[in-house]
Amino acid sequence: MPQDKSLDDLFLETLKDIYYAEKQILKALPKMARGAEASELRTAFLKHRDDTEIHVERLQQIFKMVDKPARGKTCDAIFGIIEEGKEVLEEFKGSPALDAGLTAAAQAVEHYEIARYGTLKAWAQQLGMKEAVSLMDQTLHEELKTDKALSQVGLARANPKAA
Amino acid sequence: MPQDKSLDDLFLETLKDIYYAEKQILKALPKMARGAEASELRTAFLKHRDDTEIHVERLQQIFKMVDKPARGKTCDAIFGIIEEGKEVLEEFKGSPALDAGLTAAAQAVEHYEIARYGTLKAWAQQLGMKEAVSLMDQTLHEELKTDKALSQVGLARANPKAA
Repeated sequence: MPQDKSLDDLFLETLKDIYYAEKQILKALPKMARGAEASELRTAFLKHRDDTEIHVERLQQIFKMVDKPARGKTCDAIFGIIEEGKEVLEEFKGSPALDAGLTAAAQAVEHYEIARYGTLKAWAQQLGMKEAVSLMDQTLHEELKTDKALSQVGLARANPKAA
Repeated sequence: MPQDKSLDDLFLETLKDIYYAEKQILKALPKMARGAEASELRTAFLKHRDDTEIHVERLQQIFKMVDKPARGKTCDAIFGIIEEGKEVLEEFKGSPALDAGLTAAAQAVEHYEIARYGTLKAWAQQLGMKEAVSLMDQTLHEELKTDKALSQVGLARANPKAA
């Protein structure tokens, strides 16, 4: 019954959503790295891939805290965001604008994660889950850092090359 | 030929993407406002709807600057993000967690827009399109402001109510 649903349920649903999303991101990043032309961008994607593995592990720890199996739930949002990245790879392959497009696609991924971890951290706070707050906060800061690093690659390399 | 594609093409493609996204957001926000229980949240959604109308007009101005018809291009990302908002409306209707879920869904929309306008602003800068930079910057700041306002509603009202 929806009437009975509370923040715990919403927290768990959203945990499943971002868990699925992180797993999709884990698959997409090596493809984006292979597509990237500038070595800085390739490095940024592979670094983000390594970070993502840690983010997945942190989510698994949080599933344990709420005594639920770590299981994803199809996330239409990340599916659409990654799809747009694939389109850029296809449509701009071999063009000077490819890296700028890939950088933008990766930043859309980052912002989805930033939104989700920001929300989950606030909910964990409300639910008094201190350890989960700390884990979500670490991941959130890493996502914000990656987003800034991508902006730098865009400004310094990808955009000037594309213009 | 992809080899010939440059930042102008990428800019135009992404302009079409966010134009489509804004139009979808314009349709989704009144539904989210009708679903919201707290009056603060309803007001925030309707305010965002009014802002979005202005954002659409700004995009139309930028289409004019690049001498192209204002035309959207299906944006899988926003489609998925809005779809998740609809799921929250269905699954949490009548529950105390509904507003918290709607707030989170709206923040995911915000972050997609923040990513896109941040990118478009950087590209407009690279392309020397001063007026477009200024328009994108205004919209970007309004999106950031809306995101903060939603965080406030979440922390002060929706999350405590859901817990």
